[in-house]
Amino acid sequence: MVKKRKKKSTKGKGKNKMANQKMVYFFGSGRAEGKGTWKDLLGGKGAGLAEMTDAGVPVPPGFTITTEVCNKFYDLGKKIPAGLEAQMDDGIKKVEKSMRLKFGDRNDPLLFSVRSGAKFSMPGMMDTVLNLGLNDDTVAGFINKTGNEKFVLDSYRRFIQMFGNVVMDIEKNEFEDILHAKKVEVGAKSDADLDAVALRDIIRKFKAKYKQLTGKNFPQDPKEQLRMARNAVFNSWNNPRANTYRKLNDIPDNLGTAVNVQTMVFGNMGNDSATGVGFTRNPATGNKEFYGEYLLNAQGEDVVAGVRTPQPIVKLGKDMPPVYKQLRNITSKLEKHYRDVQDFEFTVQQGKLFMLQTRNGKRTAAAAVKIAVDMVKEGLLTKEEAILRVDPQQLDQLLHPIIDPKAKVSVLAKGLPASPGAATGVAVFTADEAAARGDKEKVILIRQETCPDDIHGMDAAQGILTARGGMTSHAAVVARGMGKCCVAGCESISVSEKGKKFTIGSTTVKEGDWVTLNGTTGEVILGKVPTIEPQLTGEFGILMKWADEIRTMKVRTNADTPHDATVARDFGAQGIGLCRTEHMFFAEDRLPIVQEMILADNKADRKAAVAKLLPMQKADFKGIFKAMKGLPVTIRLLDPPLHEFLPKREELMVEVAVMKVKGEDKEKIKVKEALLKRVEDLHEFNPMLGHRGCRLGISYPEITEMQATAIFEAAAELAKQNIKIIPEVMVPLVDLVKELEDQKAVIDAAAKAVMKKHGKKIQYLVGTMIELPRACVTADEIAKVAEFFSFGTNDLTQTTFGYSRDDAGKFIMQYIDKGIFEKDPFVTIDVDGVGQLVKMGVDKGRKTRKDLKVGICGEHGGDPASVEFCYKIGLNYVSCSPYRVPIARLAAAQAVIKFGAKKTKKKAKRKSK
Amino acid sequence: MVKKRKKKSTKGKGKNKMANQKMVYFFGSGRAEGKGTWKDLLGGKGAGLAEMTDAGVPVPPGFTITTEVCNKFYDLGKKIPAGLEAQMDDGIKKVEKSMRLKFGDRNDPLLFSVRSGAKFSMPGMMDTVLNLGLNDDTVAGFINKTGNEKFVLDSYRRFIQMFGNVVMDIEKNEFEDILHAKKVEVGAKSDADLDAVALRDIIRKFKAKYKQLTGKNFPQDPKEQLRMARNAVFNSWNNPRANTYRKLNDIPDNLGTAVNVQTMVFGNMGNDSATGVGFTRNPATGNKEFYGEYLLNAQGEDVVAGVRTPQPIVKLGKDMPPVYKQLRNITSKLEKHYRDVQDFEFTVQQGKLFMLQTRNGKRTAAAAVKIAVDMVKEGLLTKEEAILRVDPQQLDQLLHPIIDPKAKVSVLAKGLPASPGAATGVAVFTADEAAARGDKEKVILIRQETCPDDIHGMDAAQGILTARGGMTSHAAVVARGMGKCCVAGCESISVSEKGKKFTIGSTTVKEGDWVTLNGTTGEVILGKVPTIEPQLTGEFGILMKWADEIRTMKVRTNADTPHDATVARDFGAQGIGLCRTEHMFFAEDRLPIVQEMILADNKADRKAAVAKLLPMQKADFKGIFKAMKGLPVTIRLLDPPLHEFLPKREELMVEVAVMKVKGEDKEKIKVKEALLKRVEDLHEFNPMLGHRGCRLGISYPEITEMQATAIFEAAAELAKQNIKIIPEVMVPLVDLVKELEDQKAVIDAAAKAVMKKHGKKIQYLVGTMIELPRACVTADEIAKVAEFFSFGTNDLTQTTFGYSRDDAGKFIMQYIDKGIFEKDPFVTIDVDGVGQLVKMGVDKGRKTRKDLKVGICGEHGGDPASVEFCYKIGLNYVSCSPYRVPIARLAAAQAVIKFGAKKTKKKAKRKSK
Repeated sequence: MVKKRKKKSTKGKGKNKMANQKMVYFFGSGRAEGKGTWKDLLGGKGAGLAEMTDAGVPVPPGFTITTEVCNKFYDLGKKIPAGLEAQMDDGIKKVEKSMRLKFGDRNDPLLFSVRSGAKFSMPGMMDTVLNLGLNDDTVAGFINKTGNEKFVLDSYRRFIQMFGNVVMDIEKNEFEDILHAKKVEVGAKSDADLDAVALRDIIRKFKAKYKQLTGKNFPQDPKEQLRMARNAVFNSWNNPRANTYRKLNDIPDNLGTAVNVQTMVFGNMGNDSATGVGFTRNPATGNKEFYGEYLLNAQGEDVVAGVRTPQPIVKLGKDMPPVYKQLRNITSKLEKHYRDVQDFEFTVQQGKLFMLQTRNGKRTAAAAVKIAVDMVKEGLLTKEEAILRVDPQQLDQLLHPIIDPKAKVSVLAKGLPASPGAATGVAVFTADEAAARGDKEKVILIRQETCPDDIHGMDAAQGILTARGGMTSHAAVVARGMGKCCVAGCESISVSEKGKKFTIGSTTVKEGDWVTLNGTTGEVILGKVPTIEPQLTGEFGILMKWADEIRTMKVRTNADTPHDATVARDFGAQGIGLCRTEHMFFAEDRLPIVQEMILADNKADRKAAVAKLLPMQKADFKGIFKAMKGLPVTIRLLDPPLHEFLPKREELMVEVAVMKVKGEDKEKIKVKEALLKRVEDLHEFNPMLGHRGCRLGISYPEITEMQATAIFEAAAELAKQNIKIIPEVMVPLVDLVKELEDQKAVIDAAAKAVMKKHGKKIQYLVGTMIELPRACVTADEIAKVAEFFSFGTNDLTQTTFGYSRDDAGKFIMQYIDKGIFEKDPFVTIDVDGVGQLVKMGVDKGRKTRKDLKVGICGEHGGDPASVEFCYKIGLNYVSCSPYRVPIARLAAAQAVIKFGAKKTKKKAKRKSK
Repeated sequence: MVKKRKKKSTKGKGKNKMANQKMVYFFGSGRAEGKGTWKDLLGGKGAGLAEMTDAGVPVPPGFTITTEVCNKFYDLGKKIPAGLEAQMDDGIKKVEKSMRLKFGDRNDPLLFSVRSGAKFSMPGMMDTVLNLGLNDDTVAGFINKTGNEKFVLDSYRRFIQMFGNVVMDIEKNEFEDILHAKKVEVGAKSDADLDAVALRDIIRKFKAKYKQLTGKNFPQDPKEQLRMARNAVFNSWNNPRANTYRKLNDIPDNLGTAVNVQTMVFGNMGNDSATGVGFTRNPATGNKEFYGEYLLNAQGEDVVAGVRTPQPIVKLGKDMPPVYKQLRNITSKLEKHYRDVQDFEFTVQQGKLFMLQTRNGKRTAAAAVKIAVDMVKEGLLTKEEAILRVDPQQLDQLLHPIIDPKAKVSVLAKGLPASPGAATGVAVFTADEAAARGDKEKVILIRQETCPDDIHGMDAAQGILTARGGMTSHAAVVARGMGKCCVAGCESISVSEKGKKFTIGSTTVKEGDWVTLNGTTGEVILGKVPTIEPQLTGEFGILMKWADEIRTMKVRTNADTPHDATVARDFGAQGIGLCRTEHMFFAEDRLPIVQEMILADNKADRKAAVAKLLPMQKADFKGIFKAMKGLPVTIRLLDPPLHEFLPKREELMVEVAVMKVKGEDKEKIKVKEALLKRVEDLHEFNPMLGHRGCRLGISYPEITEMQATAIFEAAAELAKQNIKIIPEVMVPLVDLVKELEDQKAVIDAAAKAVMKKHGKKIQYLVGTMIELPRACVTADEIAKVAEFFSFGTNDLTQTTFGYSRDDAGKFIMQYIDKGIFEKDPFVTIDVDGVGQLVKMGVDKGRKTRKDLKVGICGEHGGDPASVEFCYKIGLNYVSCSPYRVPIARLAAAQAVIKFGAKKTKKKAKRKSK
């Protein structure tokens, strides 16, 4: 960069070549010398002001000093190029003409704001200087004109303060101390309580402080003020904050900054003045109605401060009919120009309308959908553009209840927004309690952390709150799957499950107390708060239809029950990408049999227990197959380590120790000890990396055999009812192709036996979950046996990073705070690390099996940024929790629009079955 | 493969073109028609017999039917090509002439063995048929000739049994049942107790059974026997076992098998006959002496069975002087021919010497070293060949005590051979007990599993036995580091640490009982067993010197104490590749301070505790730097999660519960509960994937700062003594380059402060351990900041596979049994998975930093196969435990010899500093 600057410098030498060059661009009175596209020359803000002026928007007039001047300033060793002063004077004259005011006039002064403006927005580079042009003389005229002495004096003291700080680098507290002392002296609670006398004294002291610290008087000459402010802007381009910001954001050092000098306008100059804000459409509903509010004879701050109650904007039509008409015209022109809802600010100064700002308006999800669809109908947008206008993530709002925005809430604590929606209910601290009370009343289940044992309680609760665990902790994953609100990892609360309470600071919440959760923000709220069930408007359906027409990647769902499967189908799921079978094992009527299976010390006993599970599993699968009505269903074989189905080791240890101390019956102790022994045998230091997934199936082929048989029996029986199912049997946690070969042999044998028994051919696929780095690296080998891949990016993220999702929440939050992470990698796929392994897996897999069907079934399948990545690397489908299916559908459509469809579409079509 | 066969078949058509082709190759009487190199045509065994015969070795004569005949046999639809019978007859005649015997002669019959023999050895394809040619007639003549009726009858019944089983596929138990019934009937305990009458009855019944099951009489015509056996060999080429074996070993299906028909010879035909075995050099010591034993008038089995005591082979010189002389001549010729020690079997049949087998002899490590070095001196081998002759793994024997091979031992159980050597001592069950008794007597520390708390006990013990954990469990890693014997993961024993005993079956071993461990085999032996301290012979030093001359890759060591560092230097380590700092934190005088640091609830208290550790750490590093005398030292910053330094959660839970039941002092309980609370806060579900490594340093920069300061202070103080140290500071567990940037900033600041304080410049490097898949995938980014990489392949194996090394032992053993794994990936690097990630890391790292120094410091650094891989991918060094340094040195030299040096040598030289 330094080199480049030097080169330019050489070029610029041989006298001051800029003199004849245009260095100042005026905008105002309906025309701009610059263009909206000249961001290099005018900076982003300057170009924007030119664009608005040219679009007929009455922005307060002003002029932009170009970025070239900034670069020249540095080339000349921080000197102003010749000719600039003259061009600026010319600019000032044009503004004066447009405003019919004079800069520095003691009766009716023109005031300026001075702002920096580089090509790329660089927040924090230089603050703005407002009210430039005020001095001891002009103040008097300004008071006269506004009739508001306090306001003008306050503006003057603010100007000195801002100028001193921004231009002269005087520490803020130098002025604040004076202000504070004065307030104490006169007993003023806020700045507004200071009267004119006090303000005049403050201004005197500010000027004295200015002189003391700079050695010079506060400049009284407005042009001198302007020159100093301009130079301060140029200097600010190279201050350390700006340099750091550019380095972090890869902005070249040699762009330079422009300086924007713009007229100050005031809405408090009498009853022919006003100020207001508005939207071109209703940002809450999306309805096409002029929306906003204003105050007569007021400053913008007054609208915000709430001292006076603003009027609805339609009333402006009565107060100032021509201004209102002009405002309607301008804003509807702006909406057409920017082809989006505009959020605008305006000021009327003595009957003249000025637009201070216009930008694309923020809106609720419902409004976003309605506006996008309406604008297509109005011919403003194409369908593709409409699809891009809605943030898929925001759709979540439409799929869950929300807290009534009007409700006043008392936020107790904040955890991770683990599963969106809102829920209100009485606090319970055990799953059993939740299950017992959940039928009769609304309950919130609060746990240190949840485990598979808690499923029945989670199912009965309205929402779940945990003190431990991250965005993909057990509670979070299960809650999202259930479409249930969850706040997880709320580390600041201290949960006592035995004491049936939690505490935070001095507050204690006991069983039965009302609690409300906001799973969208992570807030934990004390008391009962009304919630709203949002309605899916017709536009939502239309937008989804368009999205489906465009997208090429399928969207499946992760569902373990017929209920979830049905919900997902209704949300548009095109199959099940992940049906976990372990949740079925936790059902109340099965857990004892599962434990029997685990505790069996010989194969015969184990087989007997397994046999009892077979009819139950078969019924599970039949239910799910029926719900999906012939859509593909991927069933994952048993995955978690067996000790998850047994009582907890440490609890048994305590029990045994206590029984012994109490001198309880020896036989009873013996039984408990025997159980503990078995639990000890199965205990693992790192269960995540232990005896689970296909490792279980290899150790206990009878479990795989039972599950496969249940799947094929279910399919065979439904085939007789003419429901055709092609089950996709998924072997979890494969590292080595030989593991898959081993399990595939068991599955194939089960299929053969069932087909023989029923005399019917059953089509099926055997594939694997790719969820370990080794599987990605050796995917070419694995694909020789696997007929499909499904990327389990939760576990893949865990192993690629070496993060336990149950433990990592704490330091991931820290990392995000420190800027080490931009996003939680369990929420949005880590493209540079985990993503590269996924891509490698896809590419290698298709090298040995061209028509390999590839999907993703980790939590990332419902995250828009991750869906985009999945599209880019050519996946056939994503699979996500039922409530995120619409989000994934929209994100998949957006990906096609953003990255082009043709090639990939063809590819995807050829590849997907 | 089928296609190829068909092609060949077409070629072969147009009548039987083989008729004129040579299909049978004779060997015997000092000449062979085939050549030792014709393995394609004659198979491996046939080619070997030809080679030996040509080398003047008197092997029993015979002939080989070529592999082409086998292929033709299949082409013709399992028919024998025309002309084969005639060529076989010719072969038989040549053998008869050489042996002066006749096939089928009723007085002095020639007998054959028939064996398959493909190009590649395929064990289990077809069993051998021995004594072919016996029938009801020849039996009589054979009895007459040997004068040993029982022997001949037993040979005949074995022949029928073998023939029936191998040629006619009769189940083995059909014959075994008859044999067993007879033994019961006559009260015979073993086969040898059966007399001639019984044997004749058995033969009769065997023949009847044969007829019953095959519908034909047992063939009495020797030529018919031979034809049937030959066809059985051809058929066996396509039996399922053989097909599977070929598939598993990538052997093409179209090679075919040869058939070897060879004369049977007998050492039990009177006192002019004998049989024996021997070595050309002493296989235990390597001394150049003729070594072996023999028996007159005996079969080979008699030597092995130990019924008669064999004579030392030198005595054969007196019994049969010409035969002895011939044997000496032949074997020394064989040694020269094969250029290696020969392990041979011979038989003397009626004064005539036959060599039955010769192969390279197995030998002890000491012998291997001595023989290799001697053979260079004798001009038999080059230095390079000598280096390749010694198995680096075997060197381990030379570096640890071994169990006296003469001792009779009672093996109680078998675990994993986790750390080699032998140790004997009294059983103790807690680390404290070990530490208390270890000074006075020899103790073996026996634990369920070990943890860092146990270090002092492990240090005091002679050996360590654990019931849980794999080859890289805590016990295994620490023991190997200490060069101490360890048997880990001995799942069959049940350890009660509280009961101070362990049980296996009905045996109980209590505290104080003598126990012996064999860490080389994994055996746990009851009682006190004598051990031998092996001596490093002079030849060992010579071989190492040669290895050092050749190798290009450096060998460093993993050492945490000055003692280990000194041991490693003595073994030839060229620096420390991994100095762990956590072991220092566990020292008795420090643990309380470390706990103070962890339990501090504010930064000030934590800093105060950390400050207390600084002088201790400085002293640690000074000691190690001194021991390494200026060689490079890589110090890894604190790695394990903090809860490892606190009492165990479950034990505290039990304690608190028991205290409460007992109604103990409430204040005491409160203190204990507070501790439990903090332990709960730090508790992790998967500590391996938790808050550890650089994640700690980022959360608690004061720890990193203290450690870095200690390192630089130590270096600065030694610099004043003119000991120059270039510390390499290693940041563990980096996933993201920003983590490393964060920690490097802290380290650089510490260095700057120390340099300022001492007014001395200290050279140092900051690098990172690459031990997570994400680090490999993004190594190019990380190398922009890291000045060196050290691959932590233990953790990388854990995360790449998703295996917890503390838990995976169980199923890895199962996987090896099932053939899913060839080798434990924690022992030998998994080249296809983990290895690919390592390679990617090296390549990407050097892309952005050409001179990046790269090493490996996982356990694999001491495994020869892994060292070879490290060499191939261009590492600068490997680092291993002190006791494996010589192994790594030798393996590194072998890698150069096997894979060429030039290019890599240059590269390595340029790259290593």
